[in-house]
Amino acid sequence: MSQPLFHRVALIGIGLIGSSLARVLRRDSPATEIVACARRAETLAAVERLALADVTTHDPAEAAEGADLVVIATPLSAYAEIGRHIAPALKQGAILTDVGSVKEVVVRDLGPHVPEGVHFVPGHPVAGTEHSGPEAGFAELFRDRWCILIPLPETAPEAVANIGRMWEMAGMRVVTMTAAHHDRVLAMTSHLPHLIAYTIVGTATNLEESLKSEVIAFSASGFRDFTRIAASDPVMWRDIFLNNREAVLDVLQRFSEDLTALQRAIRWGEGDTLQELFTRTRAIRRSIIEAKQA
Amino acid sequence: MSQPLFHRVALIGIGLIGSSLARVLRRDSPATEIVACARRAETLAAVERLALADVTTHDPAEAAEGADLVVIATPLSAYAEIGRHIAPALKQGAILTDVGSVKEVVVRDLGPHVPEGVHFVPGHPVAGTEHSGPEAGFAELFRDRWCILIPLPETAPEAVANIGRMWEMAGMRVVTMTAAHHDRVLAMTSHLPHLIAYTIVGTATNLEESLKSEVIAFSASGFRDFTRIAASDPVMWRDIFLNNREAVLDVLQRFSEDLTALQRAIRWGEGDTLQELFTRTRAIRRSIIEAKQA
Repeated sequence: MSQPLFHRVALIGIGLIGSSLARVLRRDSPATEIVACARRAETLAAVERLALADVTTHDPAEAAEGADLVVIATPLSAYAEIGRHIAPALKQGAILTDVGSVKEVVVRDLGPHVPEGVHFVPGHPVAGTEHSGPEAGFAELFRDRWCILIPLPETAPEAVANIGRMWEMAGMRVVTMTAAHHDRVLAMTSHLPHLIAYTIVGTATNLEESLKSEVIAFSASGFRDFTRIAASDPVMWRDIFLNNREAVLDVLQRFSEDLTALQRAIRWGEGDTLQELFTRTRAIRRSIIEAKQA
Repeated sequence: MSQPLFHRVALIGIGLIGSSLARVLRRDSPATEIVACARRAETLAAVERLALADVTTHDPAEAAEGADLVVIATPLSAYAEIGRHIAPALKQGAILTDVGSVKEVVVRDLGPHVPEGVHFVPGHPVAGTEHSGPEAGFAELFRDRWCILIPLPETAPEAVANIGRMWEMAGMRVVTMTAAHHDRVLAMTSHLPHLIAYTIVGTATNLEESLKSEVIAFSASGFRDFTRIAASDPVMWRDIFLNNREAVLDVLQRFSEDLTALQRAIRWGEGDTLQELFTRTRAIRRSIIEAKQA
């Protein structure tokens, strides 16, 4: 049997993404020892029931000890403390990565804790569903999706390549970019859409009671798609908005201006403006279908 | 063999909805004669190729002649002219209905043309996809969705019941309400979501070229769901916004206020406000799943 890519992998945080990665490792790299770390007892109980790890622990430092790969997969607000805890336990030559949806803040909060001789490669497998927790994971979650890696000036290329190989094993296409660029792209493709979905579902819940039940009955006419997105994990998303503030506020401002322009077109009956935009947006959908992301 | 519900049905406009209804009639009421009317030659050629009608014509009056059911399924802006054309051709006792997404304007524009002795029952089968045209239709489109009928004070209950039976045959659950109430409910569940999806996809197309291709590559992270909605028929949607102006502007105003509140929470780092909303919106998704509309 060939050497496994990593002998011992510590998954710190084992929700949708962490548990899906555990399933990939179980399937494609059975010789890899998996250590799962979570704060809540129910989470670790589920991990044990699903046999997703060889060892479970509540202590991030214990999990990181002796691991040649440490993956942080918790909400962003936990990163700094985890970094402080695991730093002394990280072994020389180990790779430290994460799966968070914002990257500049990871470089800022986690970077300073990384000891000399440990390779730090922030990452973002761009995949997910509206479900959370270890039961919600599945190995095929990553298939044909993109994984963005953020090599830092001091990162060894070999470490980036190793992490890349793991995500390719999961079926992902791997690309590298700077943290700042990542945060701008994701603000548009992911953070703004989620913010808007949360808002519109909130607007609907504030309607008078007589309308609210009908909003649910007639949701299939468009609203339903937003509710799926707006069912995503609340803590994870709170952290994303707090930690990608500038980029989110920038695209949000652009969106608000565009929405106001449409509002004005509706008020003044400017049908050509509406039709022109609606025709243009169809083309974007076609590009996405051609890029096989639909 | 039992009597067909209608002997001769005229479908004026035969796109996604009209052609799906034709397929239902072909499947469940093969004795019904179907007359299809469309303005464009390609549309009628497709209808003939798909064998969706017994007779095809460009002339709405010719289509309506002798029909015991006339269904208008064009964009709303064509209604008034169609009404003028078909009025003299409608036979006594015929039922006139439509499938439009706004209803007060239908009562206003079409109502005055309806001759004495013809039953007018505006309707809205709340179903659709982002695709258009007769090739895009399918009989199962209506299955388990709601159909809203708008009985007018002068409408014979028997006519409402007959139309209701047809949509039930298509698998729909039929409900009645006033035109004004319909327009408010749909403004929230359908028109606002579409407007927002069109806007955000437009905002993305206005990004500088270097970001735009990445928005497509990374669309799976949330943006993609909006592009599907924003690929819907441009003319149909232009007409919806122009014809449900007041109700759309009202919910749009509510949405904008809510979005501004979230924008402020992000700017000032108010994580509790964000998390509280994101938790609340999850519950709405559960209600939709329980109502079997997911």
